[in-house]
Amino acid sequence: MPKPLNVGMIGYGFMGRAHSNAYKQVGQFFPSEHKVVLKAACARDAEKAKAFADQWGYESIETDWRKLIARKDIDVIDICTPNNLHKEIALAAAAAGKMILCEKPLAMTAAEGKIMVDAVEKAKVPNMVWYNYRRIPAVTLAKKLIEEGRLGKIFHYRAKFLQDWTIKSDLPQGGQGLWRLDVAAAGSGVSGDLLAHCIDTAIWLNGRLDTVCAMTETFVKERMHNLTGKVEKVGIDDACTFMGRFENGSLANFESTRYARGHKALYTFEINGENMSLFWDLHDLHRLQIFDYKDEGKIRGWKSIHVTDNSPDHPYMANWWVPGLAIGYDASFTHQVADFIAGLESGTPASPTFRDAYETQLILDAVLDSAKSEKWVHVPKD
Amino acid sequence: MPKPLNVGMIGYGFMGRAHSNAYKQVGQFFPSEHKVVLKAACARDAEKAKAFADQWGYESIETDWRKLIARKDIDVIDICTPNNLHKEIALAAAAAGKMILCEKPLAMTAAEGKIMVDAVEKAKVPNMVWYNYRRIPAVTLAKKLIEEGRLGKIFHYRAKFLQDWTIKSDLPQGGQGLWRLDVAAAGSGVSGDLLAHCIDTAIWLNGRLDTVCAMTETFVKERMHNLTGKVEKVGIDDACTFMGRFENGSLANFESTRYARGHKALYTFEINGENMSLFWDLHDLHRLQIFDYKDEGKIRGWKSIHVTDNSPDHPYMANWWVPGLAIGYDASFTHQVADFIAGLESGTPASPTFRDAYETQLILDAVLDSAKSEKWVHVPKD
Amino acid sequence: MPKPLNVGMIGYGFMGRAHSNAYKQVGQFFPSEHKVVLKAACARDAEKAKAFADQWGYESIETDWRKLIARKDIDVIDICTPNNLHKEIALAAAAAGKMILCEKPLAMTAAEGKIMVDAVEKAKVPNMVWYNYRRIPAVTLAKKLIEEGRLGKIFHYRAKFLQDWTIKSDLPQGGQGLWRLDVAAAGSGVSGDLLAHCIDTAIWLNGRLDTVCAMTETFVKERMHNLTGKVEKVGIDDACTFMGRFENGSLANFESTRYARGHKALYTFEINGENMSLFWDLHDLHRLQIFDYKDEGKIRGWKSIHVTDNSPDHPYMANWWVPGLAIGYDASFTHQVADFIAGLESGTPASPTFRDAYETQLILDAVLDSAKSEKWVHVPKD
Amino acid sequence: MPKPLNVGMIGYGFMGRAHSNAYKQVGQFFPSEHKVVLKAACARDAEKAKAFADQWGYESIETDWRKLIARKDIDVIDICTPNNLHKEIALAAAAAGKMILCEKPLAMTAAEGKIMVDAVEKAKVPNMVWYNYRRIPAVTLAKKLIEEGRLGKIFHYRAKFLQDWTIKSDLPQGGQGLWRLDVAAAGSGVSGDLLAHCIDTAIWLNGRLDTVCAMTETFVKERMHNLTGKVEKVGIDDACTFMGRFENGSLANFESTRYARGHKALYTFEINGENMSLFWDLHDLHRLQIFDYKDEGKIRGWKSIHVTDNSPDHPYMANWWVPGLAIGYDASFTHQVADFIAGLESGTPASPTFRDAYETQLILDAVLDSAKSEKWVHVPKD
Repeated sequence: MPKPLNVGMIGYGFMGRAHSNAYKQVGQFFPSEHKVVLKAACARDAEKAKAFADQWGYESIETDWRKLIARKDIDVIDICTPNNLHKEIALAAAAAGKMILCEKPLAMTAAEGKIMVDAVEKAKVPNMVWYNYRRIPAVTLAKKLIEEGRLGKIFHYRAKFLQDWTIKSDLPQGGQGLWRLDVAAAGSGVSGDLLAHCIDTAIWLNGRLDTVCAMTETFVKERMHNLTGKVEKVGIDDACTFMGRFENGSLANFESTRYARGHKALYTFEINGENMSLFWDLHDLHRLQIFDYKDEGKIRGWKSIHVTDNSPDHPYMANWWVPGLAIGYDASFTHQVADFIAGLESGTPASPTFRDAYETQLILDAVLDSAKSEKWVHVPKD
Repeated sequence: MPKPLNVGMIGYGFMGRAHSNAYKQVGQFFPSEHKVVLKAACARDAEKAKAFADQWGYESIETDWRKLIARKDIDVIDICTPNNLHKEIALAAAAAGKMILCEKPLAMTAAEGKIMVDAVEKAKVPNMVWYNYRRIPAVTLAKKLIEEGRLGKIFHYRAKFLQDWTIKSDLPQGGQGLWRLDVAAAGSGVSGDLLAHCIDTAIWLNGRLDTVCAMTETFVKERMHNLTGKVEKVGIDDACTFMGRFENGSLANFESTRYARGHKALYTFEINGENMSLFWDLHDLHRLQIFDYKDEGKIRGWKSIHVTDNSPDHPYMANWWVPGLAIGYDASFTHQVADFIAGLESGTPASPTFRDAYETQLILDAVLDSAKSEKWVHVPKD
Repeated sequence: MPKPLNVGMIGYGFMGRAHSNAYKQVGQFFPSEHKVVLKAACARDAEKAKAFADQWGYESIETDWRKLIARKDIDVIDICTPNNLHKEIALAAAAAGKMILCEKPLAMTAAEGKIMVDAVEKAKVPNMVWYNYRRIPAVTLAKKLIEEGRLGKIFHYRAKFLQDWTIKSDLPQGGQGLWRLDVAAAGSGVSGDLLAHCIDTAIWLNGRLDTVCAMTETFVKERMHNLTGKVEKVGIDDACTFMGRFENGSLANFESTRYARGHKALYTFEINGENMSLFWDLHDLHRLQIFDYKDEGKIRGWKSIHVTDNSPDHPYMANWWVPGLAIGYDASFTHQVADFIAGLESGTPASPTFRDAYETQLILDAVLDSAKSEKWVHVPKD
Repeated sequence: MPKPLNVGMIGYGFMGRAHSNAYKQVGQFFPSEHKVVLKAACARDAEKAKAFADQWGYESIETDWRKLIARKDIDVIDICTPNNLHKEIALAAAAAGKMILCEKPLAMTAAEGKIMVDAVEKAKVPNMVWYNYRRIPAVTLAKKLIEEGRLGKIFHYRAKFLQDWTIKSDLPQGGQGLWRLDVAAAGSGVSGDLLAHCIDTAIWLNGRLDTVCAMTETFVKERMHNLTGKVEKVGIDDACTFMGRFENGSLANFESTRYARGHKALYTFEINGENMSLFWDLHDLHRLQIFDYKDEGKIRGWKSIHVTDNSPDHPYMANWWVPGLAIGYDASFTHQVADFIAGLESGTPASPTFRDAYETQLILDAVLDSAKSEKWVHVPKD
């Protein structure tokens, strides 16, 4: 008899859909002792909550997240709201003893994040943050190659996340689907939205980042605010670049923007080690590029691994199709739910926990401080 | 109130899984009046049927497909068996008035296919064959560009489907997961398995193929047969190449093999028109390459379209994520179910119907005849 | 004291320029005992001969190739005329005891080629045909990898040479720069012009081709003939595709056309062996793609070798620049002259000799015969 | 009658060879009123000078550059020495009224550069610095597209130059071929060697750089010095990254290193404008990637232009081969000589002049200052 894992979902946007799809798929592709049950969907607007619940198969709805948290039949609270609600909901859920899966970034600031970490650790509730890119098979394979010690001393880590969807100056800030442009809801612009992903992957693959020096820019200074109906100053960063040094001595070069014409969601990272280099690109997410210096000289070159073998060689892929058939972006969430459940069953929590994600908040704070002060900033150890 | 569409699935292998995933996803991503219900899974082995039904959420099982077809609560029969069972099951299902979704290739031979077409047309049951690549958004976009008349006169169509998984001579033929190597179960080798896909796409995009001249090869002449326990002659084609001429005057060059080291499932096609050329590659299925001769000379070149915009520009993608985030191979099945349902609702059946797929059988027969006779063969018009 | 090698060049078009550049470069990049001297340039039109000689530094001119051949101060005759003059010039040059470097294809037909081979062999004069692609470093590296036995049993060899420059139906045939469209001057269309290159490389890399089955097409049936001023029937093949079998059991798939919109000079080849596959593309001529099955499973993939290391690992490159800096198409001719001279000095003639190139003529004849007869044709062994 | 342009070459290394090849080629590919004459080669070691002169066809040699400059039969002094000699030679050559072609970077420091600019401007001698990448046809095409106003407002400019050849810690510093590792001879490490190229292209394409913030690293702290025979502290920067702001409001992200395993000479730049983005990569130098936002939505994507058309569409290419046939790195020098001569003939000097190159020195100084001070630095206007 499978153990039910009753999910209460707060939010119904892009991430609400992505997580719901994962909950529905996980049992078929990664069967376990647990069975995810879509118990309740919560949104302030009852009609929207109903429509979402009907479409995705949630058994019930709530319009007040506090009521959702109060329900005894809910095991897991999934926080898919704008960033400014993460903390309050997470604290309440922790207090109610619920497991918590929180969308990234964990918090608006490191200070908020610290409170959230303390809350879940005090409550001893399983917790995780949806930095889903760790579970793209090609990225997970990169992690394995690094853990196996194949790269040797690391010299460089560079990452960028380039988009172009906010170039139009008549795009409003705020409101449905546009809260990412509203500093009050999002806390920051590309740094919290895009760089956060780059940082999470980087510290997972390359360890602690020690110092940073950053620059931000807001190209479009004023936009109509959909919630107020007025043209208002834009508070977010449209672009954020930073240099830095990792604790292992390697150099960091990070960049994110929503003004790189031609790039939809070009998240790339490259790590250069003494013996091997790795490169990944979200636009071709099923491939990992590697250069292996140990190859014989005459046949040395960059290799493109099509990470689609249904074998243990390629993380997660043994559970999908046959070699050559790529899975999508969405599968990364399915993998994350599978790992969360595996963590429950094994007792070793799946990463990134709130604590892991807090490290990213510390770096984000340092980056934004540096951009403001125009100085190098040391990332605190906690 | 959604109308239930009760599916009875026969088979539980690779395609059984792929179709089941699509049935489960379609309502969330392509909502309609119909609601797919996974009513029954059928397999000769009760234990396997049970395990599959449990994992995928089928409500019941059957161990005899005739009983499944006899059930009044089944609307759709999905045939995911080896090829040698397609005809018999389809005829019975048609006789019982069931809708039929049949895995490709439709039949073992064109003669078999003809009988099946006649049966479904006489019974007037909705029918479709799972040539899923038509519903990869990049391929569907290619179709749209052709329909819009952008290519002008067509000169060339070339396609190949290259794999490398049967190079090992100690791989057995026949038995679980290996029936594709057994001519008795599969009818043919790469021609029915791989070329069939290439042909289906080609006639959809470029019209009737008139004449062909083919060559086949069986590199490994004998293999252990898992069902008999004996080393037996291999009856399938390991590789099949053909040239030909389309009715529109363009030249065909097709190739398929399971002996192209380094290629997992490299299905590519290219069409060269007077004004525009198109190229697609299953290994990067989310991209369509186009060359537009109407571009200004100095900036003319091959363009890689990342077919991931959630807008009507990119077929099916408005129903998925945000720009830049690729969907997987699996989504092509979800789209096919969505289109099948849309066909039921609109009255215009989704292609390829059995009749459409029969044209592919005629070509496959001509190809195999040509390889045997070493002569050019005319493809009959029906 | 370097030995002079006095060149008499016949022709001043594209190839006349490419060879002259090579003669001028070879001493700087591949110094040897010999010193190439540009002794005389020959063209029917004295003014054009003079202009060419001045621009390229030829010491003198001739307007009658017979006179050029008669000159005692000429060691090497370089034949850069249209194909229909190759035989006559080569026979005269051989009779005069001159070394001969002849543009490809060697001859209009195999019969012509046989006469030419006999002539140079009887005269014992050093001879070579300008199949320059053998000397692209990436292609030479492919040859080395094959010779080292890395590929194992070969299953497939496919090559294509795609262009798009004759799609315009108002392009004339014949006359300056357009003799390649005139069957009287060229002998054939894409088969002699483009396929000849593909075949030369193929038999060098993969051995004898045993049987072929071909198809040709002339898309534009009539064109203005510049020399007659009349619209005349086009006698050349615009496209030529063939299948075949090599003596080593591998399958051939070759295609060439001047109607593949978007491709300027896309010569590609791929060879699939049991243990390794290789791919090369003239549009990125400095790269060789390899797939090495002996790589560990988890990091197996296609590797792009940037064949630019100035080390013995990368053929010819030790004589050029530093790693990462590509050489151009033109360098292949420089390499060929260097190898021709090295052949003179070592006594082992550089390939392809007239005899080597004659094999390509035999295949071309078989291909055109097959296209005409619509039958499989055996390539004679000589 | 062509006007002789007598060249006196100082140095015989990598650049001495590259320039000499250009001098020899220019008359054939870019004929003009001038005829370059290789008059004299100069090196301290007479034997080396003689060998170089013989191989490349210089008419005479000198062992003292002052004597070379004093010769009346020399029109142009080409400075191909290590950086620490540029100033002294250039001042002497200017004083002698010679035209000067100086290898990049112009000088060891901006202060040195200023003196050199003043000298050539006072002497009114034609002068140019060998930033050859401006003359790669794909890069020149980028310049044209920008000049035509196609990009609109610029948001981002990023460039990197990645190599991996100094990772080995037992590589000596100093001495033959290794002076680039010796701070006394080179002035700096990757900043002057690699970043200088990136900066030259950037200011040419995107205008003045206003402020920078940089970080440098020396990974290998000590190396054997070949000239002293002792292990000495390494004074150069092994890696240099900087951020900055251009005067036009766009953001800069630059990086260079010799520790990026897998990259031989990966110089890339990307510029993101409101309406168009451009990307170029030295490893595939014959291609320019463009994204044109004005393309229709459904066929919008990155386009790879194979910049090899022999037409005015593709800069310089009308003088080379036929479409599809790439030229090499070396051709960029041939183009630069052609443009230098065209500048002499037209009266409009070819760029970059010493003054143009001085701007790069100002930025390099600012970058190194910033790395040292760990502060943002304003680039002086002169």
